[in-house]
Amino acid sequence: MTAPSEWTERLAALLVDFGANVQPGQLVLVSSDVGKEDLTRMVAERCYERGARYVEVRYGDPWVRRARLRHAPLDSLDLTPSWDLERVRALGDAGAALVRLEGAVAPTLLADLDPERVGRERPPAAREQLRLIAERRVNWTIGPCPVPGWAEQVHPDLEPAAALEHLWEEIRHVCRLDEPDPVAAWEERMNETSGAAARLTERRFDRVLLEGPGTELSVGLVPSSRWIAARESTAFGVTHHPNLPSEEVFTTPDPERTEGVVTSTRPLQLGGTMVEGLRVRFAGGRAVEIEAERGADVLRTRAAADEGAARLGELALVDDESRIGRLGTVFYDTLLDENAASHLALGAGLDFLLDEADAWRSNESAIHVDFMVGGAAVDVTGVTAEGERVAVLRDGEWRI
Amino acid sequence: MTAPSEWTERLAALLVDFGANVQPGQLVLVSSDVGKEDLTRMVAERCYERGARYVEVRYGDPWVRRARLRHAPLDSLDLTPSWDLERVRALGDAGAALVRLEGAVAPTLLADLDPERVGRERPPAAREQLRLIAERRVNWTIGPCPVPGWAEQVHPDLEPAAALEHLWEEIRHVCRLDEPDPVAAWEERMNETSGAAARLTERRFDRVLLEGPGTELSVGLVPSSRWIAARESTAFGVTHHPNLPSEEVFTTPDPERTEGVVTSTRPLQLGGTMVEGLRVRFAGGRAVEIEAERGADVLRTRAAADEGAARLGELALVDDESRIGRLGTVFYDTLLDENAASHLALGAGLDFLLDEADAWRSNESAIHVDFMVGGAAVDVTGVTAEGERVAVLRDGEWRI
Repeated sequence: MTAPSEWTERLAALLVDFGANVQPGQLVLVSSDVGKEDLTRMVAERCYERGARYVEVRYGDPWVRRARLRHAPLDSLDLTPSWDLERVRALGDAGAALVRLEGAVAPTLLADLDPERVGRERPPAAREQLRLIAERRVNWTIGPCPVPGWAEQVHPDLEPAAALEHLWEEIRHVCRLDEPDPVAAWEERMNETSGAAARLTERRFDRVLLEGPGTELSVGLVPSSRWIAARESTAFGVTHHPNLPSEEVFTTPDPERTEGVVTSTRPLQLGGTMVEGLRVRFAGGRAVEIEAERGADVLRTRAAADEGAARLGELALVDDESRIGRLGTVFYDTLLDENAASHLALGAGLDFLLDEADAWRSNESAIHVDFMVGGAAVDVTGVTAEGERVAVLRDGEWRI
Repeated sequence: MTAPSEWTERLAALLVDFGANVQPGQLVLVSSDVGKEDLTRMVAERCYERGARYVEVRYGDPWVRRARLRHAPLDSLDLTPSWDLERVRALGDAGAALVRLEGAVAPTLLADLDPERVGRERPPAAREQLRLIAERRVNWTIGPCPVPGWAEQVHPDLEPAAALEHLWEEIRHVCRLDEPDPVAAWEERMNETSGAAARLTERRFDRVLLEGPGTELSVGLVPSSRWIAARESTAFGVTHHPNLPSEEVFTTPDPERTEGVVTSTRPLQLGGTMVEGLRVRFAGGRAVEIEAERGADVLRTRAAADEGAARLGELALVDDESRIGRLGTVFYDTLLDENAASHLALGAGLDFLLDEADAWRSNESAIHVDFMVGGAAVDVTGVTAEGERVAVLRDGEWRI
């Protein structure tokens, strides 16, 4: 096997213990896909070993999804079965844990489908699940699961077995599983990014400028916008790490005050379609033009999903210490790629990053789509309410 | 591949078109397991091609189940999450279709576990799902899916690939996929068994005797007990075939009037454990002694699940024309093996087989466990209220 079960086991332990931080007596929902059985089973077993009361494993199947996208009535593609709503409600009420295993089993499987139909699809209970997270009612994490299809996409020049082996090596490295004590290594890195987040919050910037090739963007903040690293804590006091790996420092911006143009610096995979060479123009906070060399339609349809879908819900900064950025690999997966570079997200904001009185100013939407806009060539500058300009990132390094 | 996709496709079509008889606009729940992806995907696609509105595919994973049975708190093993109840409710309200793909992916995986814990497990919403079926609120079918683990269990003397190939040949044959028109062949066989069922109903037997080696059993019927073959119709008028293959003619007995001893004629797989050499003594309708050469504990715990779990819910007769009986293969799977021989079921009765006024006399339970008790050596005799004895099956042939 290219993935010695030792690494699979270490990854499962990192996700359950440090990522979601599953507690005794919890309900746990594990969202996976067929093709990820080894890691999924180890995650489920680890949850039970930590005392979980019930672990529900849901395996998605991209081929079933393809059948739906091809044949189902158009007006059913955003259907949410009542039991999916009930599950989200019950998990929130119980204070449950969620673990999601990321990594495309069949990255190009939907590429030949009608982009309008693909764009119409909504993951069941998407809005309710985002609220669950925004209200800090669950401890959760998303982590990567190397699979052959994904490995071939990332390393098309290698034989399939070698591609999978190489992807596993990279995942091992960026997840710091190659450290003697992965949890200690992550604690240290999270302390660094949390420090940068604290300093950004302290400066109370009125807006943030992104300036680089094809990018001239001003992102307005709410006065109470807080910055954090990917270390969070539920309303009932469980600290968890929502993304593994994570190298980012992020906030939720003012959905009405983004102006200018931004060009993506990495490709974006969206519902199985690749969006490449993306360029978005904002006016009054809205994405008023979405252009791309490829795949613009899918993002356009997504951004038309609801009133907030064309506005920003997140601004995230990533420095050059990122193991993902240093690796230079394009993973065609937001979980990893967004941690290589600073990024923006269209759609749902994170209202817990605003003071309660301002929470209504966080963007509302059923979608949340990240796209990468940063890199060594993109300067990031904070502007205070008084107009003072403060260097935040230069040449990929923190200056704050 | 040992299963040419042509056969997989014919099996998917038989299950969706003839088995569940999926209707345009229906919701469909497909219950499968990891390892059955090919057939599952073809079933899902076929449902959509017939106009299904939404197809939910649920993949079980026996290794996740094993982790639960090993580690979860004992008092959680019969837990039903609220969303599983909601799904059953919603599928019933919608008049949905159900397709289940049978066949053990890992037949011996639970064999080393504590039988008391295994016996405590209850499939989520089991009672509610049985009621859904008893009230004819869904059109449904259960069909076989050949997989390597199952094939090795059935044909341990063959190499794994040859075992799977041989199992596929047998499934092809017993599902009549090797007929030029499988649906026409099934219509003909179902007409035969339905004819026998009609004649049995006409005689209004007071009880049925099973007499053979180790078996001396009298099963009392309710005066209004109807016999049917596995062709049913929903309350909203959709004809469907609940089991494929099916060779049986069955009724629901009086749960209070079974007396005597019965010895099983085929092994029974129960929650991953094999029950072999089973011998059950009934008094006043209750199974008061459950003995076996192996696995008795699991059935004993199951039969103690609730008040009705030790009483009969079904009596089924199978003649020698059965393709499964003729094949002589033991499939270690109730779906197939029960159609080789006459059988009984402990647990939930089928109240729609009684007149409405008698429906309360049908057995109530959260379980329904079939075990095989018939064969050429077991005589089946009907006894009328007046004491007249009528030969029903002799040497495996219908005499009625």
